Amino acid sequence: MSDKDEYLKRLRRIEGQARGLQRMVEEEKYCIDILTQVSAMTKALQAVGLGLLEDHMSHCVVDAARSGDEAETAAKIKEASDAIARFTR
Amino acid sequence: MSDKDEYLKRLRRIEGQARGLQRMVEEEKYCIDILTQVSAMTKALQAVGLGLLEDHMSHCVVDAARSGDEAETAAKIKEASDAIARFTR
Amino acid sequence: MSDKDEYLKRLRRIEGQARGLQRMVEEEKYCIDILTQVSAMTKALQAVGLGLLEDHMSHCVVDAARSGDEAETAAKIKEASDAIARFTR
Amino acid sequence: MSDKDEYLKRLRRIEGQARGLQRMVEEEKYCIDILTQVSAMTKALQAVGLGLLEDHMSHCVVDAARSGDEAETAAKIKEASDAIARFTR
Repeated sequence: MSDKDEYLKRLRRIEGQARGLQRMVEEEKYCIDILTQVSAMTKALQAVGLGLLEDHMSHCVVDAARSGDEAETAAKIKEASDAIARFTR
Repeated sequence: MSDKDEYLKRLRRIEGQARGLQRMVEEEKYCIDILTQVSAMTKALQAVGLGLLEDHMSHCVVDAARSGDEAETAAKIKEASDAIARFTR
Repeated sequence: MSDKDEYLKRLRRIEGQARGLQRMVEEEKYCIDILTQVSAMTKALQAVGLGLLEDHMSHCVVDAARSGDEAETAAKIKEASDAIARFTR
Repeated sequence: MSDKDEYLKRLRRIEGQARGLQRMVEEEKYCIDILTQVSAMTKALQAVGLGLLEDHMSHCVVDAARSGDEAETAAKIKEASDAIARFTR
């Protein structure tokens, strides 16, 4: 992981967004305003996912490629592309 | 909102997922395993968003349509479709 | 449908993008450049989908709501929210 | 590109879907049925995009990693992650 503290900071902010959403529901805020926050939180999560994917490519895929192990390289790429698939649907 | 308690339950679970992700990062779990949890949490959030959209249509759009107020109906539909747009990209 | 000609124009442009992509593959263009075009085409398609959803709400949902038929209104909203669900994943 | 003919076959099918959608609009089919086809076509396009991303990782990223050129490797990974970002929103 490129920057553990950065990920933790972002995830704590996302946890705070989840609490903020509960407050909005409790206070029966307007559904569209709640939805706007759900979208913002989804985007924040996707940014974390994208960072993790980039880390996976920069470390796991690149290390496997450099090791010369073809099967391991293919496996790491397969993991990345499965993760991207889960991510885009 | 159709079922406030149901939304709160789901959002508390999502908050728990955000804390679980922090733990995985702290313990330096494998990036692909963290990504799998990020995807699961994203899906849970999207399900909340979808529920809110359905509520918006069932209440705000339908009430406006029944009131006979054309401008208000158009405004509610515009809000829904802007929310869907934010949601799909 | 709010504007049939507008939809047809957009879909013809999308068809042209599909042909453009075939040309790029034939000419073995750089994969990232092809991907950029795939993303542009996906966005164009999503805009068509969004327009159709807005039409569905403006006509089918609103008409059902005004008719006073509760079951029909619920059915139209269910169709919309199923379509949004297919759309976001 | 791993399999040019396979990509061309898929893109021709997608082009056919674009034509099918025009026919549905011409014939004023039910908006939800058109939307279902839009979703199917979007999924087919995303599958093409995913294949291209996997090719990019298997060839461009891996080749750069093996060449030992750090800057080139970082550039290829940056291209991949920018493409994934465009793809997920």
